[in-house]
Amino acid sequence: MAVETKTISVHSEGEMNVIDITAKIDEVIRKSKINEGIATIFVPGSTASVSTIEFEPNLVKDMKNAMERLFPSDIKYNHHETWGDDNGKSHVRATTMGPSMTVPFKDKKLLLGTWQQIVLIDFDVPARKRDIVVQLMGE
Amino acid sequence: MAVETKTISVHSEGEMNVIDITAKIDEVIRKSKINEGIATIFVPGSTASVSTIEFEPNLVKDMKNAMERLFPSDIKYNHHETWGDDNGKSHVRATTMGPSMTVPFKDKKLLLGTWQQIVLIDFDVPARKRDIVVQLMGE
Amino acid sequence: MAVETKTISVHSEGEMNVIDITAKIDEVIRKSKINEGIATIFVPGSTASVSTIEFEPNLVKDMKNAMERLFPSDIKYNHHETWGDDNGKSHVRATTMGPSMTVPFKDKKLLLGTWQQIVLIDFDVPARKRDIVVQLMGE
Repeated sequence: MAVETKTISVHSEGEMNVIDITAKIDEVIRKSKINEGIATIFVPGSTASVSTIEFEPNLVKDMKNAMERLFPSDIKYNHHETWGDDNGKSHVRATTMGPSMTVPFKDKKLLLGTWQQIVLIDFDVPARKRDIVVQLMGE
Repeated sequence: MAVETKTISVHSEGEMNVIDITAKIDEVIRKSKINEGIATIFVPGSTASVSTIEFEPNLVKDMKNAMERLFPSDIKYNHHETWGDDNGKSHVRATTMGPSMTVPFKDKKLLLGTWQQIVLIDFDVPARKRDIVVQLMGE
Repeated sequence: MAVETKTISVHSEGEMNVIDITAKIDEVIRKSKINEGIATIFVPGSTASVSTIEFEPNLVKDMKNAMERLFPSDIKYNHHETWGDDNGKSHVRATTMGPSMTVPFKDKKLLLGTWQQIVLIDFDVPARKRDIVVQLMGE
């Protein structure tokens, strides 16, 4: 049994950019000594989440529409008074969806469905580099 | 320390079928060599989620009502244009709730509350067999 | 590799009390023999969740407003007919957000962002003591 903690980085356009990170996680597993176990995928920061989706542009649009419908951009957020920020919606979306996901793998393969990709969802406003922790544990 | 990766299967009626899988996970733990650790429960596929609930029929109805209120069946989903599918709502619900959960256990017992069951929530439309990965890790 | 299962306790005021439990989890890690691995944070019970947030009072208010908007207190919940309870909203919120989160740590430090705290969100109505399982696994 062993644990390996890595960081992957992606460029995010911000504002509900949904980024497929499956290949990067596959690569972390391929280069590791671990064949079977969990990949814990964790976003440091409080304005992004990780989940899975069938990664195709129309569904990504549907996800953006759902987030805008549930946590609208144009309502009042008290958080804006704290820092003069404009990303209250980003925080509330990220806290609701959570920063973390664990995906099991075996024989060095993530046990995903055929039409299921791992994505970072960036709820924040500005473009930026996003670091994501990928920690493998197993044997 | 060891890792064991199993798959359990259930029959799902589709359309917000909420299925109590606690007993099946208990059985995986009972038959394993691991006494203390985590059970990672992961649904391959992008139209179902796992969570916990007080599993009683009225609350299951409330959960269905909430999902229908937040992600209605009768609004436009762009995903329908991609494949001619009708399950845009199913995907958006599943991505929001996530495919994965980790539950700790000790002395071969899941550390759940008294009124807390582990459930598969199938957001997709058709009835089908659903496979769920249960991976135990610990000692 | 080792696993250590601990329980931390907090006093909750109920009704959307959001409680920063980061320092308590830091302490569990500091006192353990494990330097690198995952902390699985799990709430037994079906009316509370764990997530991360930038813990400041205005954002906590925004989170309360969002939950009230999405899962209102003043609509019908079938669950109330089962036990004569009044916490249908609490259950539906908790099942949607989930009871569990895994956070990686290294060199005994949780890999959180600078403005990211781990919180218990108590969706239930009465004040009470809340127990939270913190299970460390790693080496």
